[in-house]
Amino acid sequence: VKWQLALDRMSITQAVEMAKSAGPYADWIEVGTSLIKMYGMESVRAMKSAFPEKTIVADIKTFDNARYEFAMCFEAGADIATVMGAAPAKTVELCARTAEDYGKGYMIDLLNVPEDRIEQLCGFDGAILCFHLGKDQQEHEGTRFERVKAGAFKHAGDGLSVALAGGIRLEVLPELMLHRPDLIIVGEAVTKAPDPAAAAKQLSDFIKSRGDEC
Amino acid sequence: VKWQLALDRMSITQAVEMAKSAGPYADWIEVGTSLIKMYGMESVRAMKSAFPEKTIVADIKTFDNARYEFAMCFEAGADIATVMGAAPAKTVELCARTAEDYGKGYMIDLLNVPEDRIEQLCGFDGAILCFHLGKDQQEHEGTRFERVKAGAFKHAGDGLSVALAGGIRLEVLPELMLHRPDLIIVGEAVTKAPDPAAAAKQLSDFIKSRGDEC
Repeated sequence: VKWQLALDRMSITQAVEMAKSAGPYADWIEVGTSLIKMYGMESVRAMKSAFPEKTIVADIKTFDNARYEFAMCFEAGADIATVMGAAPAKTVELCARTAEDYGKGYMIDLLNVPEDRIEQLCGFDGAILCFHLGKDQQEHEGTRFERVKAGAFKHAGDGLSVALAGGIRLEVLPELMLHRPDLIIVGEAVTKAPDPAAAAKQLSDFIKSRGDEC
Repeated sequence: VKWQLALDRMSITQAVEMAKSAGPYADWIEVGTSLIKMYGMESVRAMKSAFPEKTIVADIKTFDNARYEFAMCFEAGADIATVMGAAPAKTVELCARTAEDYGKGYMIDLLNVPEDRIEQLCGFDGAILCFHLGKDQQEHEGTRFERVKAGAFKHAGDGLSVALAGGIRLEVLPELMLHRPDLIIVGEAVTKAPDPAAAAKQLSDFIKSRGDEC
């Protein structure tokens, strides 16, 4: 089980600093959508050049113009880029193909995707399928992560690569880990912690200890 | 009837140049998603500072983190920002509220939104509803604009503000105009024309002449 540190709502400098302090405990570093939309590909380039050995995920949330957007991420140094599962089928297909052409990875973000479409998207066996509770749903509806778990756990373990994202904190990990996700994405539970490096280490230690058991 | 010049897949400098030559014939200038994801809010700031009197649309395609993304657009100088109709309901609602707080406009992009959800989104009566055929659908499926027209025309004229987007060219305008859309969005038919200013003028002249008839 890997975990990804998501960096959002901060400057590029703050993101690189955060990746320096908390990043060593994470498997992957995500340049969040808010950084990409605020600073463009410079955010991805800066992160990759600061951490050339690290897997960098560009959370570009492509919805159209697949080849152009994925190519810009990979050329800026991203190892993985994201496409929305709610996007047109052709767009998801072109993202998959572009990732393959570049020898890079891609993640399909299942935020607000109906169950029947999720079933179809499971056909993309090279993808990481990300079961995702949105920030707006968490912060303004008070929805907790439990709501997206059912879908995720239905698909985990059957050969697909499953990621979980959306307000995940250390306290919910014991339950989440039982279901053997492949990737756990954590943002503010680390970046807003009083001591992000300590929070990241704690998370990492827990995942490592449970990962061996599962 | 207004029309919006969409600027995509070019540098900020090229976009500002294009807005200088072809923009005077357009009602609104769109900073396209590809510019935002490549250059961030600098693309919006540069366009607004070059054309402070012009209505600038930031095609940010928000899918989550509504308030943060819309605030960044409006603070960079955008007059209108876009949210995906496929996003969670809460996200669309927060975009509407943020636009209202800033005294700015918002457009709901209906790309790949099922008809029953479109019906619900018609409840956002302060929005511009954008019936949109994606680039990937046009370029890789050969789908023509005709496919999205039925939905659009069902809703045009009943008090909602309806925009049409997706590979629109001068040749299809006579038919589109009959249905009285409020906004027509044109990108490459102008920006890839041998003489973009001439293409923009032709489009503008046609829309003005037909707009008076409708």
